[in-house]
Amino acid sequence: MDSFDGLTPRETVERVSSSLGCSPTSAQVASFLDKHDKLRHLREKFLVPKIADLPPSDLSLVDGTKDCIYLVGNSLGLQPKMARKYLDEELDKWAKMGVHGHTEGFRPWAWAENTLEDLMAHTVGAKPEEVALMNGLTVNLHLLLLSFYKPTAARHKILLEDKAFPSDHYAVESQIRLRGFDPEQSMLLLSPRPGEETLRTEDILEAIAKEGDSIAVVMFSGVQYYTGQLFNMAAITEAGHRNGCYVGFDCAHAAGNVELKLHDWGVDFACWCSYKYLNSGAGGIAGAFVHEKHKFSIQPGLLGWWGHDLKTRFQMKNEMELQPGVSGFRLSNQPILLVCPLQASLEVFNMTTMQELRKKSYLLTGYLEFLIQHYYTKDPAEPHKPPGVACDMREPSVLRVAPVPLYNSFSDVHRFIETLGSALAASSQ
Amino acid sequence: MDSFDGLTPRETVERVSSSLGCSPTSAQVASFLDKHDKLRHLREKFLVPKIADLPPSDLSLVDGTKDCIYLVGNSLGLQPKMARKYLDEELDKWAKMGVHGHTEGFRPWAWAENTLEDLMAHTVGAKPEEVALMNGLTVNLHLLLLSFYKPTAARHKILLEDKAFPSDHYAVESQIRLRGFDPEQSMLLLSPRPGEETLRTEDILEAIAKEGDSIAVVMFSGVQYYTGQLFNMAAITEAGHRNGCYVGFDCAHAAGNVELKLHDWGVDFACWCSYKYLNSGAGGIAGAFVHEKHKFSIQPGLLGWWGHDLKTRFQMKNEMELQPGVSGFRLSNQPILLVCPLQASLEVFNMTTMQELRKKSYLLTGYLEFLIQHYYTKDPAEPHKPPGVACDMREPSVLRVAPVPLYNSFSDVHRFIETLGSALAASSQ
Ligand SMILES: Cc1ncc(COP(=O)(O)O)c(C=O)c1O
Ligand SMILES: Cc1ncc(COP(=O)(O)O)c(C=O)c1O
Repeated sequence: MDSFDGLTPRETVERVSSSLGCSPTSAQVASFLDKHDKLRHLREKFLVPKIADLPPSDLSLVDGTKDCIYLVGNSLGLQPKMARKYLDEELDKWAKMGVHGHTEGFRPWAWAENTLEDLMAHTVGAKPEEVALMNGLTVNLHLLLLSFYKPTAARHKILLEDKAFPSDHYAVESQIRLRGFDPEQSMLLLSPRPGEETLRTEDILEAIAKEGDSIAVVMFSGVQYYTGQLFNMAAITEAGHRNGCYVGFDCAHAAGNVELKLHDWGVDFACWCSYKYLNSGAGGIAGAFVHEKHKFSIQPGLLGWWGHDLKTRFQMKNEMELQPGVSGFRLSNQPILLVCPLQASLEVFNMTTMQELRKKSYLLTGYLEFLIQHYYTKDPAEPHKPPGVACDMREPSVLRVAPVPLYNSFSDVHRFIETLGSALAASSQ
Repeated sequence: MDSFDGLTPRETVERVSSSLGCSPTSAQVASFLDKHDKLRHLREKFLVPKIADLPPSDLSLVDGTKDCIYLVGNSLGLQPKMARKYLDEELDKWAKMGVHGHTEGFRPWAWAENTLEDLMAHTVGAKPEEVALMNGLTVNLHLLLLSFYKPTAARHKILLEDKAFPSDHYAVESQIRLRGFDPEQSMLLLSPRPGEETLRTEDILEAIAKEGDSIAVVMFSGVQYYTGQLFNMAAITEAGHRNGCYVGFDCAHAAGNVELKLHDWGVDFACWCSYKYLNSGAGGIAGAFVHEKHKFSIQPGLLGWWGHDLKTRFQMKNEMELQPGVSGFRLSNQPILLVCPLQASLEVFNMTTMQELRKKSYLLTGYLEFLIQHYYTKDPAEPHKPPGVACDMREPSVLRVAPVPLYNSFSDVHRFIETLGSALAASSQ
C-alpha cells in the first residue's frame, strides 16, 4: 500500500475505484485494499468470533457461520491464538512441579512479567527500564500520582479533561482529597468549546499557559475513550514542562493503537491497560511508565517486596534495596496466568511496527469515515446494533465502531456499512 | 477420626499403634490414619506432581512415577483439577464472543469476582459484604492502611513483628514515611525474648498495653510466614481495641490454613493472598476484609470505577456512587483468568469446613512433629532437600515442611521422615 503514501484515505479510495473502474462504494475497493494490505496475515493470529456465537444474533437475517464484524477492539481485544498454548504450558508446569515453577521453565513465574517488558516498551516508545507490567490501570495511576502529585499551597491543581474516563476522574478527585485539598479548587476540568465535541490543542495549551503556575500535574488521556480524539501528547508535555508541571498520560486507548513516543516526548509518567488494543483478555496486567530522567529523583510512595532488587529479593532481610525508576513502584508478585496472553499478543505486535499499524489504521478508519459520509449526510437518527456486528452502544444514541489494524480488514468495514444500511432500512419500514 | 477427639497427636499415634500392635513409627500407623481420614477424598481434587517431574530428582534414588511428597503448600498450593476446565470455558467464551463475555455466560467477567466472595468470606469467617477479591496482597495492604492508619502527633505508631514478611515490613515503613513520620520513631517492632523463636502472647499484649496510647495500628500476621506461629488474633484484637488502636492482620499464611473468625473477633481490616493455602496459582487474586462496623465510617483513600455501585457503574457519569465498606476500595476491573482457578479451589473448601480441615491439620502436623522428635533429639545438623520431596530451604539451614490437610496424607508425612532419614544417612557417610 506504500504507493498510496501521502494520499488522504478519500484520495486513496477514489484512486483505487477509478483504476478498478468501479464505484468508490463498491466491495471491490475493500477487496483490493485487503489484497494489498501488507498486514493482513496478522488477522490469522487471532480468534475472530463467528456471527452465530454473538449474542443475540437473529440467524434469519445473517449467515451465522461467517466471521462477525468485530469493531470493538477498543473495549476488548480479540484472543491471540497462542494465548491458550502459553496458558496450557504454565498450567502443565504448575501441575507437574508446583512451586518449582517460580524458577523453572520458559517463563519462571518469579520474573515472568519482566521478560515481556522489552516488547511492551517497544510498543509505547519507551526504554525497557522505563516500563513495568503490574496491577490494574487505576491502581497504577494511583501509585504514580502518589509520587508525581505533590501539591503545595501555590501549586495544587490537576488539569484533566472534563469527560475523562470515570476511573481517572475518581482517581484524581480522591488523590486531591487525600492530600487535604478540595477538588472544587484543585481539579481543573477542560471542556470542548460550546457546540464542539473535541478539545482544540490550542485551548489545551492555553489553559496550561494560563493556569500553569498553579498546576502540579497535567493528566490527560492519550486517546479519548469516548470521542476517540488523539491528543497532541508532545505539545501538551512541552507546554506542561514550560510551566513547571509534571505531565502524565492514561494510554488505555492509545497503547497498541497509535504510535507513542513516551520517552522522546519527555512524558513524566504514563499508565495503560492491556485488554483493549493489546489483546491480553479481560482484566489483563497493566503497564506503567516513569521517564528515565526521574530514575533517582522520583521515589515510589508505597513500597513492596516486588520493588526490591531481584538479585537479593528473596533473602528476606527486610532492608529495602529499591530498584531505580518505575521498577521500584512494583508491590506484589504478578500472575503468570496474565503474562501468557499478553506475551501472545506482544509477539504479534513484534511482527510489525506501530508505524505500519498506524498507517493501516489511518486508512482503515478513513475508509470507514468515507463510507459513512457517503451514505449519511447526517448521523443516522436511531442507530441500533446491526446483526452480526460486535460494537459498542452508548447512551443516548451512539454507536461506537473502532476498526483495529491488527485484525480488521477493509472488507469488515465495507460489510459493516452494508449491514448498517440494511438494518436502518428495515427499522424505518 | 472423631474417636480421637480430645487427644493430643502423640496420644492418638500411641493409641493407634498399640491397637495395631505395631511401633508408633511404623508406616501402618500412617495407613490407618489415612484410612480413617474423612477428608482423604479431597486429595483427588488436586494435581499432585510426580517425583520425576520435580527438579532436580536423581531417579536412581527414587521411583519417579510416584507422587512427590508435596510439603510446600504454604508457598504455592497445588492446582485444583477444575482450574483448567474453568479457564478453558472462559478462553472459549473470549474466542467465541469477545467483549460480550463481560455480561454473558457462567462467569460474566464484569462481576465474576463478586460471585466468589461468599465462598471466600466463609473461609475466613467474614460476612460476604466484608470481603473483596482484588489486586495483590501488598496492594491491598496499602489501600487498607491508607484508610486505617491516620497518624497524629500523639498516636502515630504501627506495631508489628520484627521479622514480618519483607513486603509487609516495607509497606508499613513506606506508609509511615508517606505521612511524614519517621519509621525510627513510629515503627514498633516486636521480637521474641532472647533465645526464643516465637512471640509470647503475653508479651504482645503487654506491648500493646504499654505503648497503646501512641499506637495507631496493630498490624500482625495471622500465621507467621517463617516460624509458622499462629497468633492469638482474638486476644490481640481485643487488646488493641482496649487501647484505642485499629487492628489488622495479614492472613497470607492463615487464610485456608486455620480457622479465622475475622468478623466475630472484631478485626478491623485484613488482607491475604490466594496462591498459598487457597491454591489459586502464582500471583492469584488477593483478598481484603473491612469489618462491617466500619461500613460507613471508614472511607477508602483512593477511588476507582470498580468501587462505584455496580448498578450504575457503566453509566459513565463521573459522579461517584461509592459502594459501602470494603467494596468501595475496589479500583480496577479484575482478571477473569484469575477468578477461574480460585473458584475451582474454593469449591473444594466448600466440600468441608475450616473446622474439619483444622482438625486434620492439627493431627497431621502433630504426627510430623512426633516423628521428628522421635528420630532427632536435636535438629539434623545439615539438612538438605531429600529426593522426591518438594519443600522449602531457607538460609542458613532451615528445611521448612508444611503438610496441608486438603491434599496431604499421613503417609506423605511418614514417607517424608523415611526419606529424610535415608538422605541424612547417605550424606553422613
Ligand atoms: C505474609 C506475607 N505478606 C506479603 C506477601 C507478599 O505478597 P504479594 O506479592 O502477593 O503482595 C507474602 C507473600 O508470600 C506473604 O507471605
Ligand atoms: C481511559 C481509561 N482509564 C481507566 C480505565 C479503567 O481501567 P481499570 O479497570 O483497568 O483500572 C479504563 C478502562 O476501560 C479506561 O479506558
